[in-house]
Amino acid sequence: MRRIVTLLTDFGTRDHYVAAMKGVLLAINPALTLVDITHEVTPHNVREAGFLLAAAFSAFPAGTIHLAVVDPGVGSERRALAAAGLRHLFIGPDNGLFDRAFALEPPRVVVSLENPDYWRPQVSPTFHGRDIFAPAAAHLSLGVPLEKLGPVVSARIQTTTSPRLGKGERVEGEIIHVDRFGSLIADIEIPADEGLESDVEVSVGGRRVLVGPRTYDEAPPGVPFALRGSSGYLEVAVREGSALKVLGQGLGTPVSVHQRKR
Amino acid sequence: MRRIVTLLTDFGTRDHYVAAMKGVLLAINPALTLVDITHEVTPHNVREAGFLLAAAFSAFPAGTIHLAVVDPGVGSERRALAAAGLRHLFIGPDNGLFDRAFALEPPRVVVSLENPDYWRPQVSPTFHGRDIFAPAAAHLSLGVPLEKLGPVVSARIQTTTSPRLGKGERVEGEIIHVDRFGSLIADIEIPADEGLESDVEVSVGGRRVLVGPRTYDEAPPGVPFALRGSSGYLEVAVREGSALKVLGQGLGTPVSVHQRKR
Amino acid sequence: MRRIVTLLTDFGTRDHYVAAMKGVLLAINPALTLVDITHEVTPHNVREAGFLLAAAFSAFPAGTIHLAVVDPGVGSERRALAAAGLRHLFIGPDNGLFDRAFALEPPRVVVSLENPDYWRPQVSPTFHGRDIFAPAAAHLSLGVPLEKLGPVVSARIQTTTSPRLGKGERVEGEIIHVDRFGSLIADIEIPADEGLESDVEVSVGGRRVLVGPRTYDEAPPGVPFALRGSSGYLEVAVREGSALKVLGQGLGTPVSVHQRKR
Repeated sequence: MRRIVTLLTDFGTRDHYVAAMKGVLLAINPALTLVDITHEVTPHNVREAGFLLAAAFSAFPAGTIHLAVVDPGVGSERRALAAAGLRHLFIGPDNGLFDRAFALEPPRVVVSLENPDYWRPQVSPTFHGRDIFAPAAAHLSLGVPLEKLGPVVSARIQTTTSPRLGKGERVEGEIIHVDRFGSLIADIEIPADEGLESDVEVSVGGRRVLVGPRTYDEAPPGVPFALRGSSGYLEVAVREGSALKVLGQGLGTPVSVHQRKR
Repeated sequence: MRRIVTLLTDFGTRDHYVAAMKGVLLAINPALTLVDITHEVTPHNVREAGFLLAAAFSAFPAGTIHLAVVDPGVGSERRALAAAGLRHLFIGPDNGLFDRAFALEPPRVVVSLENPDYWRPQVSPTFHGRDIFAPAAAHLSLGVPLEKLGPVVSARIQTTTSPRLGKGERVEGEIIHVDRFGSLIADIEIPADEGLESDVEVSVGGRRVLVGPRTYDEAPPGVPFALRGSSGYLEVAVREGSALKVLGQGLGTPVSVHQRKR
Repeated sequence: MRRIVTLLTDFGTRDHYVAAMKGVLLAINPALTLVDITHEVTPHNVREAGFLLAAAFSAFPAGTIHLAVVDPGVGSERRALAAAGLRHLFIGPDNGLFDRAFALEPPRVVVSLENPDYWRPQVSPTFHGRDIFAPAAAHLSLGVPLEKLGPVVSARIQTTTSPRLGKGERVEGEIIHVDRFGSLIADIEIPADEGLESDVEVSVGGRRVLVGPRTYDEAPPGVPFALRGSSGYLEVAVREGSALKVLGQGLGTPVSVHQRKR
């Protein structure tokens, strides 16, 4: 049964961990299409993982199963979840990883993966990605109803939304991701129809940055500038350079945006 | 409809960018087989990307669609292209990325991706990989004719060929790629039937290197030597070591090869 | 014909080498499902590759073909092998890479890939991954009998087993892999039903480490501790930290385990 499963972890790509999960998935459903979102989440950084998942998942077709495992509490009492929204399914630990995705696609049903019939026969205390989460995803892909995997726990699900820039407002946020190019991405949403106009003031770590260019090409070289990034969040970039290096500021840096009245 | 799409970018693998492109591809054609060439092109290095694409594409079967996005000018006036050669299709920005591939497989038709019917509904000014190039690749994979995607622009296509070593010649080139092992690859083609014989003199950054060994195993340890690499280009390597480290020379280093008359 | 081929190399992911192998595989069998185990084996480290393959392969379904190429002797007289066990097939150089996998799944037949009908038409002396091993894997996936690829050589196959901790014993091993989290993995197997109890003494590089926590969550922060890792080997970890950094010990460090009588 052809279905897409995406994988997002902090396992890196030099070890066998991701491959072990894929082996388990394909052993249960050999017809799966597997797509890596990333495995290079900063180790144990649940919040960064949540941002990346929220930025990626909605590009996939309806019915995609998103398997996300950044799980510093593996083996503790934290729950293991599977959640079904209107179009997408999500599987992973109950540690806040899905809060941002759930804000975009509210889950209709959430279950706790407590039914050992859908686990691997032996469950390692330190690798639930392989032994609990991957089998759950593969069984769901075969049409097993969510409710078979364990009891419904919807009531306790939380969501995270970002501050959203509006007219005449001052919004405070922080850098939640630094991308490969050294661009800094803040947890502040910029509405698509507004964009970042030149009457907006943006400060990163207390330093004002240029506003105006809508593409890298329009920006002067070497100068950090703020734009609406491709995922709808505030991004600070340097044309063919690195805002991380030029500003010397990274994850966790406070960002403030002030939209003057027009 | 089963088709192969390869992806080559400078997006890295720690962000959600590549996954977003794959989501868009699979949302349009869920039967695609997606293969990463690499996403670790040096950021904005169009020339390196062009070398890697040219080295990889011909191993794939006829009908493969190669989606390559190293695009420092995204959002500017540079064109977005789709090109069909005799066996392969190529999609990406019109910035020279395909010059080397086009020399190996001349395009019969090239179009500019100007028809918004084949874009995503919302096009970000900074992520045409997701919003213009990926949808184009997916629609082509479903059999949409190239000419539907935009006007034909074949006339302005350029190609890059490497100097090719011949008898009695001196050829000048430079290092265009450093691989994971620290081997240096120059933009000088060595004909397969000739190989690099001991009557050839090779200098890298002005320093003569050994010629003779045809495999790593035949070379003395620690000594940089030149050979015909597996892609047909001149390669300078060190057995179980790094030519990059031993020579202290990398991207852009001049290379000269002199074939004495036999 | 739908079959799974896994790939494990030391080629890295920044070059075109892995993609060239995948192109060759898909050109022969377009219906393959390709799964990367890892391409970030320490260059030329056959032993580390053997550990990673052994840790990953058994999660895959029966019939999976494992293509592993860490091959410092490429082009020398070392043989090229294809081996069939009860459930899995293995293809790669005859340099010890499969010793650990063969201990887990003894090969019933092993052949030397000497039949050029199943090579690429042109064989580069330095890239047998693309020119000999990948075509062999693809032809096997189509049902070509193993014996067509070359003469049977089973008699000379070796296996590696790890010391296995038993009651009242002292076992000596060493660190054979450092994972992304900086956890140190030793070549000492811990039986699943025993686990590591508090009556076991573990030393890494001569330094005693804590024994007792079965999960990262149970361990005190910042303190290196030994546990039975998810692949059944002794692992030394630090909760939300790096044992590599805290202990300052990596690959090759001697490890000793002493199980006192109960």
